[in-house]
Amino acid sequence: MSDPWQECMDYCVEVTKKAGKMICEALQKDISVVQKSSPVDLVTETDQKVEQLIISSIKDKYPTHSFIGEESVAAGAPSILTDNPTWIIDPIDGTTNFVHRFPIVSVSIGFSVKKEIEFGIVYSCIEDKLYTARKGKGAFCNGVPIEVSRQEDIRHSLVLTEMGFKSDPEQFKTMLDNIHTILTIPVHGIRCPGSAAVNMCLVACGSADAYYHIGIHCWDMAGGAAVVTEAGGVIVDISGGPFDLMSRRLIVASSRAIAERIAKAITEFHVGRDDTDGE
Amino acid sequence: MSDPWQECMDYCVEVTKKAGKMICEALQKDISVVQKSSPVDLVTETDQKVEQLIISSIKDKYPTHSFIGEESVAAGAPSILTDNPTWIIDPIDGTTNFVHRFPIVSVSIGFSVKKEIEFGIVYSCIEDKLYTARKGKGAFCNGVPIEVSRQEDIRHSLVLTEMGFKSDPEQFKTMLDNIHTILTIPVHGIRCPGSAAVNMCLVACGSADAYYHIGIHCWDMAGGAAVVTEAGGVIVDISGGPFDLMSRRLIVASSRAIAERIAKAITEFHVGRDDTDGE
Repeated sequence: MSDPWQECMDYCVEVTKKAGKMICEALQKDISVVQKSSPVDLVTETDQKVEQLIISSIKDKYPTHSFIGEESVAAGAPSILTDNPTWIIDPIDGTTNFVHRFPIVSVSIGFSVKKEIEFGIVYSCIEDKLYTARKGKGAFCNGVPIEVSRQEDIRHSLVLTEMGFKSDPEQFKTMLDNIHTILTIPVHGIRCPGSAAVNMCLVACGSADAYYHIGIHCWDMAGGAAVVTEAGGVIVDISGGPFDLMSRRLIVASSRAIAERIAKAITEFHVGRDDTDGE
Repeated sequence: MSDPWQECMDYCVEVTKKAGKMICEALQKDISVVQKSSPVDLVTETDQKVEQLIISSIKDKYPTHSFIGEESVAAGAPSILTDNPTWIIDPIDGTTNFVHRFPIVSVSIGFSVKKEIEFGIVYSCIEDKLYTARKGKGAFCNGVPIEVSRQEDIRHSLVLTEMGFKSDPEQFKTMLDNIHTILTIPVHGIRCPGSAAVNMCLVACGSADAYYHIGIHCWDMAGGAAVVTEAGGVIVDISGGPFDLMSRRLIVASSRAIAERIAKAITEFHVGRDDTDGE
């Protein structure tokens, strides 16, 4: 078999569509919201149900594979990437959007083997946009090939990020100072849609030229990382160095020039890693 | 005739749909961007063409009516609201989004008589969502009645605003300080989709609980103001006082409690009015 993972990807597309359908159905009825630790950190019954659907569907077919899922990790499962085929799952990327029925909500799944992402699927289910990417075979939205804008000049770029309350005043200040710095370059604008995976896909299809974020998780990044890479985009660490899926930070851009310009502009703050304890 | 303006509204829906179609067609081809004064202030050929389509269509049928349109004002036309039936038009609300093909772009038309808004139409054309509202008759999205979330507690709210570079450092700082203050309340989150008219409609249909903005124009607000009011929302001035269409600032909310809480949190800065010269 020339491509051992294509079958996994085909199966993933089916499971992702089912998960998206479950999310859209849940939005039709009242949502009983379960709060994790603060109003800013929401999780819903649907979130857990959707992850269960995805993991049980995949376990049935691939019992030896590993999983890293947002809800499983919240329940105490480890978040260590091994060489084993691993499904990295965010059942609802944009949980706050979901709770408010703000129409940017996605299912994000990345699949890694030997710590390298082989394919990624992001399904923005309210918009009904299915982004798919297999390593070396390009990126697609609903089957149509997509590519980044290839914009090189940050002053002509639309930049995505997210802002949230941070209990550490220094981190909170740095986050807002970074927005100040980016706007001052100046850029055309900053947009905050509220789903990391969709943000990466918006860069992948050329609707935005960059996205940066500190404090994100591997399950927010894995699916979108494949999509934007296959669409010709650049992903680097917030320092400008190599992208690290477990580092909780990234810059995605339409070109290396823009990625580097953002890395230069941004001040880092410490958020710990996904694969170490105690954060 | 019991409702003299219903005919104008029906006609407006037809014209708005045509305008939206023109925008979507333009997005299929390459865009030659004309810059007004800075990279942050973009205008395109399409913007002007769409406004011409709208104004000429309406003038044909209602030759005595008045017009306030973004592009006409940019070309030197006055922006004074009189008692005469007046069409207040933003041909492309979210011009920067349009240039980048970021998928939140709308046509916004409000219709006022004796300085009061009689109906509003906002067409988010890439999403194909047509928001309509006739005074006293409710608000609709694609013909389906919509209403605000009725959320009363700001700590459970999703808030919309927009951030842009401002050449006045004090204004720029105040804009970012306001975001800091709102996030610190805390709220569930802030989103910046990039179209004022769509932001108002997102509050109208309960996908967000509030939207505030200083520096907006009457053509950004007129259509959406009708929609959110008819959906049960509250619109006030940024001070908490009565909404003034020409004041270039507003708070839109799902309840009076949230509107007042935001008014209390926000620090104002001076941006002049739409109906006076020279700021």
